[in-house]
Amino acid sequence: MDEKISNLQRAKVLIEALPYIQKYNGKIVVVKYGGNAMISDESRRAVMGDIVLLSLIGVKVVLVHGGGPEINELLGKIGKQPEFKDGLRVTDEETSEVVQMVLAGKINKSLVALIGTLGGRAIGLSGMDAGMLEARRLSDCLGYVGEIASVNPQAIFDVLDKGYIPVISTVAADSTGHCYNVNADTAASRLAGTLHAESLISMTDTKGILRDPNNPDTLIPVVNVSEVASLIREGVISGGMIPKAECCCEAIRRGVKRVFIIDGRIPHSILIETLTDSGVGTMFHG
Amino acid sequence: MDEKISNLQRAKVLIEALPYIQKYNGKIVVVKYGGNAMISDESRRAVMGDIVLLSLIGVKVVLVHGGGPEINELLGKIGKQPEFKDGLRVTDEETSEVVQMVLAGKINKSLVALIGTLGGRAIGLSGMDAGMLEARRLSDCLGYVGEIASVNPQAIFDVLDKGYIPVISTVAADSTGHCYNVNADTAASRLAGTLHAESLISMTDTKGILRDPNNPDTLIPVVNVSEVASLIREGVISGGMIPKAECCCEAIRRGVKRVFIIDGRIPHSILIETLTDSGVGTMFHG
Amino acid sequence: MDEKISNLQRAKVLIEALPYIQKYNGKIVVVKYGGNAMISDESRRAVMGDIVLLSLIGVKVVLVHGGGPEINELLGKIGKQPEFKDGLRVTDEETSEVVQMVLAGKINKSLVALIGTLGGRAIGLSGMDAGMLEARRLSDCLGYVGEIASVNPQAIFDVLDKGYIPVISTVAADSTGHCYNVNADTAASRLAGTLHAESLISMTDTKGILRDPNNPDTLIPVVNVSEVASLIREGVISGGMIPKAECCCEAIRRGVKRVFIIDGRIPHSILIETLTDSGVGTMFHG
Amino acid sequence: MDEKISNLQRAKVLIEALPYIQKYNGKIVVVKYGGNAMISDESRRAVMGDIVLLSLIGVKVVLVHGGGPEINELLGKIGKQPEFKDGLRVTDEETSEVVQMVLAGKINKSLVALIGTLGGRAIGLSGMDAGMLEARRLSDCLGYVGEIASVNPQAIFDVLDKGYIPVISTVAADSTGHCYNVNADTAASRLAGTLHAESLISMTDTKGILRDPNNPDTLIPVVNVSEVASLIREGVISGGMIPKAECCCEAIRRGVKRVFIIDGRIPHSILIETLTDSGVGTMFHG
Amino acid sequence: MDEKISNLQRAKVLIEALPYIQKYNGKIVVVKYGGNAMISDESRRAVMGDIVLLSLIGVKVVLVHGGGPEINELLGKIGKQPEFKDGLRVTDEETSEVVQMVLAGKINKSLVALIGTLGGRAIGLSGMDAGMLEARRLSDCLGYVGEIASVNPQAIFDVLDKGYIPVISTVAADSTGHCYNVNADTAASRLAGTLHAESLISMTDTKGILRDPNNPDTLIPVVNVSEVASLIREGVISGGMIPKAECCCEAIRRGVKRVFIIDGRIPHSILIETLTDSGVGTMFHG
Amino acid sequence: MDEKISNLQRAKVLIEALPYIQKYNGKIVVVKYGGNAMISDESRRAVMGDIVLLSLIGVKVVLVHGGGPEINELLGKIGKQPEFKDGLRVTDEETSEVVQMVLAGKINKSLVALIGTLGGRAIGLSGMDAGMLEARRLSDCLGYVGEIASVNPQAIFDVLDKGYIPVISTVAADSTGHCYNVNADTAASRLAGTLHAESLISMTDTKGILRDPNNPDTLIPVVNVSEVASLIREGVISGGMIPKAECCCEAIRRGVKRVFIIDGRIPHSILIETLTDSGVGTMFHG
Repeated sequence: MDEKISNLQRAKVLIEALPYIQKYNGKIVVVKYGGNAMISDESRRAVMGDIVLLSLIGVKVVLVHGGGPEINELLGKIGKQPEFKDGLRVTDEETSEVVQMVLAGKINKSLVALIGTLGGRAIGLSGMDAGMLEARRLSDCLGYVGEIASVNPQAIFDVLDKGYIPVISTVAADSTGHCYNVNADTAASRLAGTLHAESLISMTDTKGILRDPNNPDTLIPVVNVSEVASLIREGVISGGMIPKAECCCEAIRRGVKRVFIIDGRIPHSILIETLTDSGVGTMFHG
Repeated sequence: MDEKISNLQRAKVLIEALPYIQKYNGKIVVVKYGGNAMISDESRRAVMGDIVLLSLIGVKVVLVHGGGPEINELLGKIGKQPEFKDGLRVTDEETSEVVQMVLAGKINKSLVALIGTLGGRAIGLSGMDAGMLEARRLSDCLGYVGEIASVNPQAIFDVLDKGYIPVISTVAADSTGHCYNVNADTAASRLAGTLHAESLISMTDTKGILRDPNNPDTLIPVVNVSEVASLIREGVISGGMIPKAECCCEAIRRGVKRVFIIDGRIPHSILIETLTDSGVGTMFHG
Repeated sequence: MDEKISNLQRAKVLIEALPYIQKYNGKIVVVKYGGNAMISDESRRAVMGDIVLLSLIGVKVVLVHGGGPEINELLGKIGKQPEFKDGLRVTDEETSEVVQMVLAGKINKSLVALIGTLGGRAIGLSGMDAGMLEARRLSDCLGYVGEIASVNPQAIFDVLDKGYIPVISTVAADSTGHCYNVNADTAASRLAGTLHAESLISMTDTKGILRDPNNPDTLIPVVNVSEVASLIREGVISGGMIPKAECCCEAIRRGVKRVFIIDGRIPHSILIETLTDSGVGTMFHG
Repeated sequence: MDEKISNLQRAKVLIEALPYIQKYNGKIVVVKYGGNAMISDESRRAVMGDIVLLSLIGVKVVLVHGGGPEINELLGKIGKQPEFKDGLRVTDEETSEVVQMVLAGKINKSLVALIGTLGGRAIGLSGMDAGMLEARRLSDCLGYVGEIASVNPQAIFDVLDKGYIPVISTVAADSTGHCYNVNADTAASRLAGTLHAESLISMTDTKGILRDPNNPDTLIPVVNVSEVASLIREGVISGGMIPKAECCCEAIRRGVKRVFIIDGRIPHSILIETLTDSGVGTMFHG
Repeated sequence: MDEKISNLQRAKVLIEALPYIQKYNGKIVVVKYGGNAMISDESRRAVMGDIVLLSLIGVKVVLVHGGGPEINELLGKIGKQPEFKDGLRVTDEETSEVVQMVLAGKINKSLVALIGTLGGRAIGLSGMDAGMLEARRLSDCLGYVGEIASVNPQAIFDVLDKGYIPVISTVAADSTGHCYNVNADTAASRLAGTLHAESLISMTDTKGILRDPNNPDTLIPVVNVSEVASLIREGVISGGMIPKAECCCEAIRRGVKRVFIIDGRIPHSILIETLTDSGVGTMFHG
Repeated sequence: MDEKISNLQRAKVLIEALPYIQKYNGKIVVVKYGGNAMISDESRRAVMGDIVLLSLIGVKVVLVHGGGPEINELLGKIGKQPEFKDGLRVTDEETSEVVQMVLAGKINKSLVALIGTLGGRAIGLSGMDAGMLEARRLSDCLGYVGEIASVNPQAIFDVLDKGYIPVISTVAADSTGHCYNVNADTAASRLAGTLHAESLISMTDTKGILRDPNNPDTLIPVVNVSEVASLIREGVISGGMIPKAECCCEAIRRGVKRVFIIDGRIPHSILIETLTDSGVGTMFHG
């Protein structure tokens, strides 16, 4: 423990978290975790710790994870060149299998096991379990990249109801049972909407939306979804942040109260965002 | 908020409380609160805040309160001299009514209302509600001072089951329905035993058990119940601390895992004792 | 037992009560009990016996009590003069505490204990428990006299659901937690409406509404709420009966099926009203 | 209503029934009703009324009925001579069918319908429903007269659990599905034991057990099962009362607390026995 | 077992039944069984076997039975001439009793027992149990022939909920408790509608609706309820089939999805209709 | 559909399955599926169909899968030589990851999706989910090959309770969260024992235990666990069948009623074994 913080200070910190705990108690919070934010073991452990804590104090956390780098790593090992078109991975049969294996086999179960060592109880699901996500082909030239045709959240509710933390890989089957890779941000947004989540927290490796991308002091803390279009036009939201921001808007439109893009590199950024009076990124609201 | 503690530090404090939260999650903790520890509004608010927080993070808190000074105050107002025999209040009919009114009417409901303003949900009970405590006359010369003839914890389980914090006044009826004053330490001890509580926390206005009562640095942090008799013989435990210590032993004998005598004057001493790695008084164990 | 009634007659009486028992089975009946009707021990015992019986045969009885004389008694003892303005008690801080202590501490718990000795299971509540009644100041010149800002009946439903008789004192806290005295007739009326009670039985020390107040043979057995205004204009309903009658109308408007003003001095008047073919006062309906 | 009993007296009668209602609340009481006690419409209506009342005040009544005279009546109509051996009906295939039809078709459903017109909710069962009673041949020379091979009370518990009064005909199938006539006293005794009934009330057309059968003033109000053998030897219990008394003893041995042989010809004898301080026959206990 | 079907073929048959099992799983299917289709023991055993199987694979089967021939048999035995008016039995008091006894006593309980020997769990009900069917006189000149005044399906839902197969005799009481004979086709149709059954299967001793009654090859497999009137006008539906067809239409109008008239003489016709791709009679739909 | 089997024959097959369905209804059956038996798509589809059917008719099926060939395939692709010691795979860090990915990512989710396309509802789990299996190192020279240190079946019960088919990959974490490969036969045996399964069905690519391995007509249909040791000594059970047979014995010892080694190459062998009167392999019993 941090020796410089007295136990009285510790107690005060806990008591000051009370209104935030009350606010989220019994509510569903979807956390999207993936990409570079997920690389280091230390970060994973910190994020899973935050999730176990939230779960224990009565928040119904649903973890949706992605997996970029590890997919490329395995593709590399089997001698396959990743190929992207408009930022989306061209996914042939073999790549589709690799994605499924890395996401649902390696990352998902490792996160589940990590939660277990931290005293939490998690069950790993994919979009294929109990027909949670049905995919359909997004575009012929992308292969097995799917868009979400329908969402059935029953398995998530059932798993939450039994007291587990659902950890979800965003691979999904089409009506013939073939596996598709589904974008994790899109899936998290759709699920958060269907689950009527109190909030969606999207962990990235950026500080949030910066008015001047080179100046971290220009963070825009709060964005109304009505402003997003003009922020894109102005170039403030650009590149890979555009689809992320659109997912945030989509979640708000589907009924999520608040959506946060936060900096996953900051330790315990979920707890800071959720249980203290300060934010660590950009909040979208309707 | 305390400006000197950064939000990262706050998050760390929360995450460091995780194993303690896990330890107490779903367990019953009986808090005995009374006497001088209860006098100031600020202390009451702090203690009730601690209880609301514990309740929210899944601890089943049962609050047993006493009430010394306010009883004397009302007795004074109606021109009645408090009379004690061997540390026990001689309780005639009129005094018995005053005790009942102050405990079950004033203090109990005020604590319940205070919990409400802090966002908790409490129901105030007395030993008379649903026959929770049956009293019998302790001694003829003390009047309506009762000892506990039997305990029926059903109402407490029912109130906990519905999600409320039970707040309990230690007045009890005998089989004819007459009200008796019951010692709050004794009642808390008996209730904690009957409820199979994980722990009983007795809040006092002392630092705990001191080897040298004049030297606060001689606190004995841990006492095995088998040592209590010799500590009394040696005079280390003396005066009003003797019946308190005996209540602690009794609770351990009835199956409570750990009993704490803590200093209620230290702000948030319950949280420090429960959710940090340091103790703030004396722990009894079996 | 009354020797003059044979056991066959007893059985017939029971069987003749069958349709009335069927009518009230599983329904909520709010009983308002207070004032002079509550003074004698014998009357209290008889009324609590009636309530235990109703509860046992499947009626969900909710008892709302007042407390007039005992409040004055304690105010007298502490040398405080009761002061009334337009029939409402001017309530300073000290008076407010006395009211809380007498109602929630003395009368409530004594009724609860009495029910216990009669074989019933009661839990005493006040408007402060679980935020059941929120008060706001009625008028600046009356001090801590509250009107009801909002009603949350959850605690009553929970207590009924667990099989207890809720016994309710009409003291309530405002949003800061300060205690207010709330008129018991008004509270009973509001609660009966919120609980969708089958009936509200208000026990008084009058025969009901008399066309000629000096002639008990002029009892008006049934009043439609639409007639109340003209009965007040005609002076048939006058004095302290006016607010009572208005509470009856209010309860009907809020959805209570039938409201009875009955004579609490008649032994077992609740049972006579509820389980026989004769009434003992005035029934209001919509 | 009986005009000579005032409403106050009615209320007193109800309140005096309180301890008896409390005693039986939530308990199972098996009523055996049959033979001559069942002949008149008036008697049936009175007995069913008693049962509906008991059911409504929380007693779990299980009605086991017999049917003597109506069986003979139908046998007579089809030109069949009843034939008895040692007091037991010799039962050929055709007789067995007549018994089944009269008991399970006519009497059972008529009692069920009568309970319905009195505001109760009954479901008629036979030993054949859900395998409640399995029969085996008692003796080769008696044909389809069965003894009880096994009892499965699940259907009764399920029907009680859903709030119905089970009304049971004592016909039962053997393992091949063939129907047997089973003695109703024996079946009631076995069922009461298996159901752990609080009491078994056997309605007869006698006053109970008389020391001198010609002198109704010699009723023996209480019999310990240990005395039954000597009462039989002394001839006090004789003839058709012997098997009845043996059923009573058997029920006590199987765990029923109290067994009553009461006079079904006395109107409301069940209520008098159950809800007043006087008995109307002979009580057996262990 | 049929030796000519290999175990592999058996497994294939089972697996080919899968979509049909899925279609009916958890749904209510009302089977009307009566008249000549019910005469032979072999047929009864086969039909009950089908019902036990359907029940076991998750179909909520409700069996409504009639009873023609056995009623006449008993009427004959007691020397009573059956008398019909417009195809309806003239039912005096004595006949009404015979009908009740044969249906609710003999046939009902025998079917219940037969289900038991096949490993199923059934409870026999009549329209009189728990007020399921209330009858009123259909016509003065027919005596105790009733039409259905109201339906209360609660007992059926309760019996299904506890896992039993309800077996229902179509006798019903009027508001005074007197028993009426109710047409079984009508009752099955009304019950199926009230229960929102997935389908109603009416077992007859015909092949279904034949365009040329003398040519079994002219079976009309599917009829839309809108065609029924013209089929009657054309004489295709005639005689006793007219009220049957009208019951089918009525059931469809009350919300039953599909109604089947099938040939009960074909062994296992229920299973063939329900769990294979071929029909064995005429299906009505809306 | 097979045209040569008439619909009547189909119905008869279904009805002849009735006693088998009754035997397994509501019971847990663990199916171990893996290795060569799992290779062809057709076989997988047939086996999953059998499981969906069993699930639908009320059997609580738990599917434990292995995965041999596909693991080697991926190891081959990444240029890793499989290395075995005493029939157990030497598992370094990279191999351990490959096993986890193939089992929990590829095979598990593909089976889950296949069940979905057949109308079933499955949830894929691994030993890591909710701490179901805790592993510890089997031997230092084998690397990440684990034996089962403890089993927590709660997640399986919860998933069954919500109506899903649990599909389980036998990878497990040790107390530090590191993933181990656990033998699927051993895991299935341990799980079946802990779940108190009615039976364990182990699908292999052999006919069962043959007295003469070269003569398929020498199948031993039934083996008592007490005979296994001598069968091993005699060489009848040899090679890879030895650990399989030991797992069967272990399951019986842990309370599984019957264990089957069946030939997964025979289409629908599970259904033939479970729902017909013939066996397709060797049954072990205690």
